Amino acid sequence: MNFETLSNILSMVADGKLAVGQAADQLKHLSFEDIGCAHVDHHRALRKGFPEVIFGQGKTSEQIIAILGKLEKSENIVLVTRIDREKADHVLSQFPHAQYFDDAHLLKIEKQPPAITGRGTILIVCAGTSDIPVVMEAYLTATAMGNQVKTLFDVGVAGIHRLFAHQKELEQASVIIVAAGMEGALPSVVGGLVKAPVIAVPTSVGYGTSFNGLTALLGMLNSCSSNIAVVNIDNGFGAGYMASTINHVGV
Amino acid sequence: MNFETLSNILSMVADGKLAVGQAADQLKHLSFEDIGCAHVDHHRALRKGFPEVIFGQGKTSEQIIAILGKLEKSENIVLVTRIDREKADHVLSQFPHAQYFDDAHLLKIEKQPPAITGRGTILIVCAGTSDIPVVMEAYLTATAMGNQVKTLFDVGVAGIHRLFAHQKELEQASVIIVAAGMEGALPSVVGGLVKAPVIAVPTSVGYGTSFNGLTALLGMLNSCSSNIAVVNIDNGFGAGYMASTINHVGV
Amino acid sequence: MNFETLSNILSMVADGKLAVGQAADQLKHLSFEDIGCAHVDHHRALRKGFPEVIFGQGKTSEQIIAILGKLEKSENIVLVTRIDREKADHVLSQFPHAQYFDDAHLLKIEKQPPAITGRGTILIVCAGTSDIPVVMEAYLTATAMGNQVKTLFDVGVAGIHRLFAHQKELEQASVIIVAAGMEGALPSVVGGLVKAPVIAVPTSVGYGTSFNGLTALLGMLNSCSSNIAVVNIDNGFGAGYMASTINHVGV
Amino acid sequence: MNFETLSNILSMVADGKLAVGQAADQLKHLSFEDIGCAHVDHHRALRKGFPEVIFGQGKTSEQIIAILGKLEKSENIVLVTRIDREKADHVLSQFPHAQYFDDAHLLKIEKQPPAITGRGTILIVCAGTSDIPVVMEAYLTATAMGNQVKTLFDVGVAGIHRLFAHQKELEQASVIIVAAGMEGALPSVVGGLVKAPVIAVPTSVGYGTSFNGLTALLGMLNSCSSNIAVVNIDNGFGAGYMASTINHVGV
Amino acid sequence: MNFETLSNILSMVADGKLAVGQAADQLKHLSFEDIGCAHVDHHRALRKGFPEVIFGQGKTSEQIIAILGKLEKSENIVLVTRIDREKADHVLSQFPHAQYFDDAHLLKIEKQPPAITGRGTILIVCAGTSDIPVVMEAYLTATAMGNQVKTLFDVGVAGIHRLFAHQKELEQASVIIVAAGMEGALPSVVGGLVKAPVIAVPTSVGYGTSFNGLTALLGMLNSCSSNIAVVNIDNGFGAGYMASTINHVGV
Amino acid sequence: MNFETLSNILSMVADGKLAVGQAADQLKHLSFEDIGCAHVDHHRALRKGFPEVIFGQGKTSEQIIAILGKLEKSENIVLVTRIDREKADHVLSQFPHAQYFDDAHLLKIEKQPPAITGRGTILIVCAGTSDIPVVMEAYLTATAMGNQVKTLFDVGVAGIHRLFAHQKELEQASVIIVAAGMEGALPSVVGGLVKAPVIAVPTSVGYGTSFNGLTALLGMLNSCSSNIAVVNIDNGFGAGYMASTINHVGV
Amino acid sequence: MNFETLSNILSMVADGKLAVGQAADQLKHLSFEDIGCAHVDHHRALRKGFPEVIFGQGKTSEQIIAILGKLEKSENIVLVTRIDREKADHVLSQFPHAQYFDDAHLLKIEKQPPAITGRGTILIVCAGTSDIPVVMEAYLTATAMGNQVKTLFDVGVAGIHRLFAHQKELEQASVIIVAAGMEGALPSVVGGLVKAPVIAVPTSVGYGTSFNGLTALLGMLNSCSSNIAVVNIDNGFGAGYMASTINHVGV
Amino acid sequence: MNFETLSNILSMVADGKLAVGQAADQLKHLSFEDIGCAHVDHHRALRKGFPEVIFGQGKTSEQIIAILGKLEKSENIVLVTRIDREKADHVLSQFPHAQYFDDAHLLKIEKQPPAITGRGTILIVCAGTSDIPVVMEAYLTATAMGNQVKTLFDVGVAGIHRLFAHQKELEQASVIIVAAGMEGALPSVVGGLVKAPVIAVPTSVGYGTSFNGLTALLGMLNSCSSNIAVVNIDNGFGAGYMASTINHVGV
Repeated sequence: MNFETLSNILSMVADGKLAVGQAADQLKHLSFEDIGCAHVDHHRALRKGFPEVIFGQGKTSEQIIAILGKLEKSENIVLVTRIDREKADHVLSQFPHAQYFDDAHLLKIEKQPPAITGRGTILIVCAGTSDIPVVMEAYLTATAMGNQVKTLFDVGVAGIHRLFAHQKELEQASVIIVAAGMEGALPSVVGGLVKAPVIAVPTSVGYGTSFNGLTALLGMLNSCSSNIAVVNIDNGFGAGYMASTINHVGV
Repeated sequence: MNFETLSNILSMVADGKLAVGQAADQLKHLSFEDIGCAHVDHHRALRKGFPEVIFGQGKTSEQIIAILGKLEKSENIVLVTRIDREKADHVLSQFPHAQYFDDAHLLKIEKQPPAITGRGTILIVCAGTSDIPVVMEAYLTATAMGNQVKTLFDVGVAGIHRLFAHQKELEQASVIIVAAGMEGALPSVVGGLVKAPVIAVPTSVGYGTSFNGLTALLGMLNSCSSNIAVVNIDNGFGAGYMASTINHVGV
Repeated sequence: MNFETLSNILSMVADGKLAVGQAADQLKHLSFEDIGCAHVDHHRALRKGFPEVIFGQGKTSEQIIAILGKLEKSENIVLVTRIDREKADHVLSQFPHAQYFDDAHLLKIEKQPPAITGRGTILIVCAGTSDIPVVMEAYLTATAMGNQVKTLFDVGVAGIHRLFAHQKELEQASVIIVAAGMEGALPSVVGGLVKAPVIAVPTSVGYGTSFNGLTALLGMLNSCSSNIAVVNIDNGFGAGYMASTINHVGV
Repeated sequence: MNFETLSNILSMVADGKLAVGQAADQLKHLSFEDIGCAHVDHHRALRKGFPEVIFGQGKTSEQIIAILGKLEKSENIVLVTRIDREKADHVLSQFPHAQYFDDAHLLKIEKQPPAITGRGTILIVCAGTSDIPVVMEAYLTATAMGNQVKTLFDVGVAGIHRLFAHQKELEQASVIIVAAGMEGALPSVVGGLVKAPVIAVPTSVGYGTSFNGLTALLGMLNSCSSNIAVVNIDNGFGAGYMASTINHVGV
Repeated sequence: MNFETLSNILSMVADGKLAVGQAADQLKHLSFEDIGCAHVDHHRALRKGFPEVIFGQGKTSEQIIAILGKLEKSENIVLVTRIDREKADHVLSQFPHAQYFDDAHLLKIEKQPPAITGRGTILIVCAGTSDIPVVMEAYLTATAMGNQVKTLFDVGVAGIHRLFAHQKELEQASVIIVAAGMEGALPSVVGGLVKAPVIAVPTSVGYGTSFNGLTALLGMLNSCSSNIAVVNIDNGFGAGYMASTINHVGV
Repeated sequence: MNFETLSNILSMVADGKLAVGQAADQLKHLSFEDIGCAHVDHHRALRKGFPEVIFGQGKTSEQIIAILGKLEKSENIVLVTRIDREKADHVLSQFPHAQYFDDAHLLKIEKQPPAITGRGTILIVCAGTSDIPVVMEAYLTATAMGNQVKTLFDVGVAGIHRLFAHQKELEQASVIIVAAGMEGALPSVVGGLVKAPVIAVPTSVGYGTSFNGLTALLGMLNSCSSNIAVVNIDNGFGAGYMASTINHVGV
Repeated sequence: MNFETLSNILSMVADGKLAVGQAADQLKHLSFEDIGCAHVDHHRALRKGFPEVIFGQGKTSEQIIAILGKLEKSENIVLVTRIDREKADHVLSQFPHAQYFDDAHLLKIEKQPPAITGRGTILIVCAGTSDIPVVMEAYLTATAMGNQVKTLFDVGVAGIHRLFAHQKELEQASVIIVAAGMEGALPSVVGGLVKAPVIAVPTSVGYGTSFNGLTALLGMLNSCSSNIAVVNIDNGFGAGYMASTINHVGV
Repeated sequence: MNFETLSNILSMVADGKLAVGQAADQLKHLSFEDIGCAHVDHHRALRKGFPEVIFGQGKTSEQIIAILGKLEKSENIVLVTRIDREKADHVLSQFPHAQYFDDAHLLKIEKQPPAITGRGTILIVCAGTSDIPVVMEAYLTATAMGNQVKTLFDVGVAGIHRLFAHQKELEQASVIIVAAGMEGALPSVVGGLVKAPVIAVPTSVGYGTSFNGLTALLGMLNSCSSNIAVVNIDNGFGAGYMASTINHVGV
């Protein structure tokens, strides 16, 4: 049916019944491919500026390979997030040119490095060494989307002078991602020091009443700094994606 | 004692002290078999239109085999839900004609395919590929209960044109089951497009604040579409059962 | 712009470029009226079988009056739910032919009684006298949507013989709504007795760990009877709406 | 020091400075043995009517063996609860006359069977086959404490006639324990049928929003039957203990 | 229909088709009166040993008066719980011989004082002065049900010697009710001192993380003393009722 | 001491010991005024691009007036958020040139309209009429911070064609704020249609399991669209502030 | 009985049967006064270093007056916490020399100012002006217990230079109390700057997901600074009491 | 850069532009070492009185070894908390002089035993044998920080005479740590007996509604004894650290 729709649109254009611009608009929203287990969204790159990203969790490696096979044909970069080592090995055996990043649980197929299109530098800051996997997921995502990205590890509020020593980098960033577990206080402090928008990512680092990151999340949602918005716990991917979107505003 | 009760009823009928209809009514509610670890409910098929379904979780394979042995004698179809591969293998060694469905964690003994008795088509829609196991449980249940069932995978709201391409199927279904994890928004959108009743099934797909499906559940309970009711998280069985019940209203 | 779209569609029909059926399909989804504070959805009755219902909570009486003024022109019945006495009085001063139902917090404008179009009888059962307001909201909604509706009050499980005395009514209903607060056990018992689909409505009746209906909700979601689906706490409107949708399956 | 205290009390009695009754009172509360990892409470049997029970969870098998070694000397029966197979094997190698019950995760040393001292029969009822482990823990505890105990399995509310068939046993019991998971509705129904006190035990049977027994617990706490009190989730031990205490009121 | 059922039973008895004992059994479960807003349960006293108690919350005073009018005819004592001053005044204007207890929010009609039928003394203990309303509800309920009841106020664990001074009363009670808010530790301490069963009632006394009694409830459910079972927050009525049931075991 | 610090810095500059740029950097972080009840942060406008905003909730009107008195001297625009009518009237009596916005509970002193400095247009979309107060708080904040702002009301997912009719405005916005209560599904749908960053604001519109906006919040945090970040429930101010920050990236 | 106990002890001392030291020990733990609604704990000052403090919430003013009447006779200072204006006026009419503090909801009777006995200075810091009521409760409590106390208001992390300007006071304090609402990040930052123990008090300042102080509490419990312990939400009294206890260690 | 900063400070001191005291102050706050995965905080011992402690959870053993390598050079004692056996073995292979404590999951490098600098004795009390791992973490921490520490195991409230037998030790301690799981009642009882500050540590010992220590935590936060403050669940390290800080007040 999808093909049918496409044909109709094209013949309407051919007949002069539909303007080219209108046809483009319609195509932007109607095109996908039904492969049984999934509706692969081929025009997402056109509509959203970045191709569909495969959420690996809960999918079999067979399903991932099938979707990847379709996306890889038309896209320069494809990401699979939340894919564990075992499934990744299965995928790598089919796509040997793919890269797997252990700490970020992310698999990437990249035909050529993306052009840097973002306005400024995205700075990713984390409170402790244990937050690094989440930072890496954000880093790989934002880099894949065409941004200059820098990182700053282990500058939590228990030794706040470590953060202040990097004030210049904080002030120069166009967007800042702050990842923190436990009490999640770092985004408030960073947010209070800069003008730039801050994307706060709670991590599941902690124990007891950290409730796997819920406490950090709640702290970030209640920040007394106002240039902060929050994504899901351990959602490094979403933080990197959102930061890239912000870094491309008006581009 | 059950036997005694039965005898009493029958002799009352024999003596003309009890009308046949009244006797049937009473039998419908009184018959079961006590096998120690369980009270097997033999007349459930009569009372409810479908035989007792065995909830496999928390039962040993010995207990499942014992109950199955009793039910199988009198029923055309028996289902065991939430039974893992290991227990299923044990059961299959005793009931070689049974079928086990890995993705749905469901075991079925079916003497002959059920007649289609439902009014229309039940359509099962899911937001993402990772929701497929829940869909399969619903599919197998509704099919076993005598319904025409169709499925539609991976049409979540992040690429909503994929859903709209199937508008005709949505409008033609007599009942729609919608399974979704994460934010659980799909039932609201589907519900807003159709007249038919929608059974929403939250799935545990997601991470962090998805809270293993709680977020999807809460979203579905608060839907701004009103032709929606909700079942437990990952309860594909219940969704299929309820949809079948609706598809047989007045039948 | 809406008008523009409409004109285009109509002129395409006039020019023979668009079949009548296709035009109707498009109109069904595109028509609404922007009145500033709201987008009034005029074609909802066509698409969904019942006109837009106004959710009164959080709206000023001025806003309700404005929306009502638009809907009333084209619809036979309009409902406003969750409207308190004070706002209702304000609305009644503008629409003197409207009726307000104190216990259900519902306001209705009905030009003429709706035809009975549902298949069978909807039975609404509640566990205690304190659940009556929720029952009344369901009753008024289902009645307005063209159903035969009966009620059965105060038959909770603490004196379960009161329920069994009404077994015939239970068995004859095509759909059953069960409202209960506290432990919310009644839907499980009713569901176990009948073939028909049961819509369970948790009510906020109770105290302490009833958590304003959350306990009843959770109980209903975990029912060991499978012909049950659940709506939001105190959502008599949704229960009545869903029951009507079920009672009209295939109609 | 404990010994010192004991000596003082005895010499005061010897000197006529302390009456025998008063001395007994004091001894009842002061005696224990400090073995480093634990303060073994030797006089609990005197004070509470049953010796200290060892909570196995979180203890090493070495610690359990040490405590058992002390208690076993002076007591007729000693129980270890929540002890897994592996630790139990370790303990059994030291105390070969002990018995381990796999389903109840309970280990028992019993020198001779306890005399029946309870007033009537304790009846333990459960909703489903999966609740049996909890029932067994209650059964073993209540039996060890000198009670006549009966059980009734798989009589949940989805097929309520199975329960009613046992009405006589329900009415004859002096205390009833009801174990149920999922929605936990069974205690309300049982409580509504009898005069006797009902101890409700929520079990972790279920999935999704059963929240590992929390839903059953909340349902039981909000029961509309009033002859019900509740113990912790899966606390078969506590239920059996409490029931025995009730069955010995005034004995 | 109820009348019909009754007639049938009676004529069967008259015809010798039904033994008197069996008829009594059946009547015990079948009799109630449908007054529209409620099904008044007239035989509850026979079945449960105490007449139906009216739960005042969420009922209008008109509804309470209607139900009271029916119950009062056949019962010696009728209780209305959770009825506020305003509704109570309305009821008192119709039933001038009723008594209202402000602190317990309980209304009682008592034709003559109940006979003392319980085995021993029920002792009600509370942690602080602010728990007194809950204690009073328990006191009035247990007294109405034919028990000797004593109270002990303000003996919380922060000054634990106040409790120990009453050790004799604790040891002599046949059942103990312990009400406490805040951390709810008192039942554990009391339970550790006595053989008798302890009914723990969490109260909503406290602030912040007392969560209106939830913390006390959780503490009580996790008591390391095993002769404890728990009722809902602020449920003085249930505690008194359960204690009376226990105090009548085997009576 | 603040004054002392300032003097030191200035004399170091005067003596050539400190470069002007360094001095400015230091001043940016050190200046505030201690007025007893508050430390007024005079240099926030310099550091953060917008002066300190007064959080009105929990402050007395006297405190608000005192802080306002200090800020008003040096700033062009001052906002007080979450200030109710009564306190606002008190403040207005002292600052007659202030404006109070009833629906947004916001008070503003504006010496002259701010220049438009943001890159593009901020579009604020809401699901229902009841969300308007939150939208207004966002609108007033973003406008005060120098942005072009447009609004779009009542385009929730139950009638999704209302949203699609505004697709052009959605695509042209540089940042989109989406406010929604109940299931909070709208941001996912909007996010799926555009490239721009979306700030999602859950509102407390709803009842029962909407849990005062918690359900909407959770839904938004779990959105399957990735260009979304979330602020606190009903935090229109934060949404407007964050959107403005994004709209000024690199400005 | 209390009197009897006292007599016994004294006569044993008189007879040389009990050493003076032992008698003192016993008296320290046994003395209280039963006034019906309360057990007034007269020896708490001796045992705990400060007399019993009356928790006003949930007590009637009559009960408060009765307890106060007993305590006032023997103590130099008596505090009533969580007493509202209305009850306080009632108490003040009986104890005209008492003082009531509106913001702290605390009533004090002080015969003469307490001697300063604490080791160093207790510093109370709060994040915002809205936290002042909690600070005042802590201030009045710690002052009444014989400590030098200083305060520092409105130095939250959004403008962290305001805090750093007071670094000397922070370093000189022997104990620091930090009160904060919203995300509750201030204690972590303060804790990271000093050696002294920090008592963190979450306040209910905030909205939405601040959950009335729960978020601040969780943040404080998960602080990455280790010299922090936490008290209940809004528990200024407990914070002041604990700080005083710390400030008197070894005194 | 850190080196540069240091040089600048030192040359300013050399030039007489900076007083020695001021330089010391600045150094105290500015020194750390950036090793990529972490910012090692070398001056924490100076600022806080104890060197940085490595939180082992979520770090790889490589990261732990790298940080340890830096800290070990300058510190007498270094602790790694929450490090499991496997990682510890890896670390021990590099630092053979380190000690690993299995029950406490703590690794220690100690060049020489710390001097005892605390004022008095810290007493650590626990409710049950299963709490010992948490006690050991507290014990090792407080000992490493220069305190005299004693322990008292298994004195929970179910046999409260075991606690009272140790009253002298309780009264002599300068600070008391109380660890308890389940209902967490022990701190309240201990707190009521002594003047000293009590640090309460909830443990995750329990099951069902113990919610992994949450119930114990809530109980402790709501203690009716006021000389209590609380740390995170199972946070033996924090309890030991805080107790040491208190034991060094004014030292």
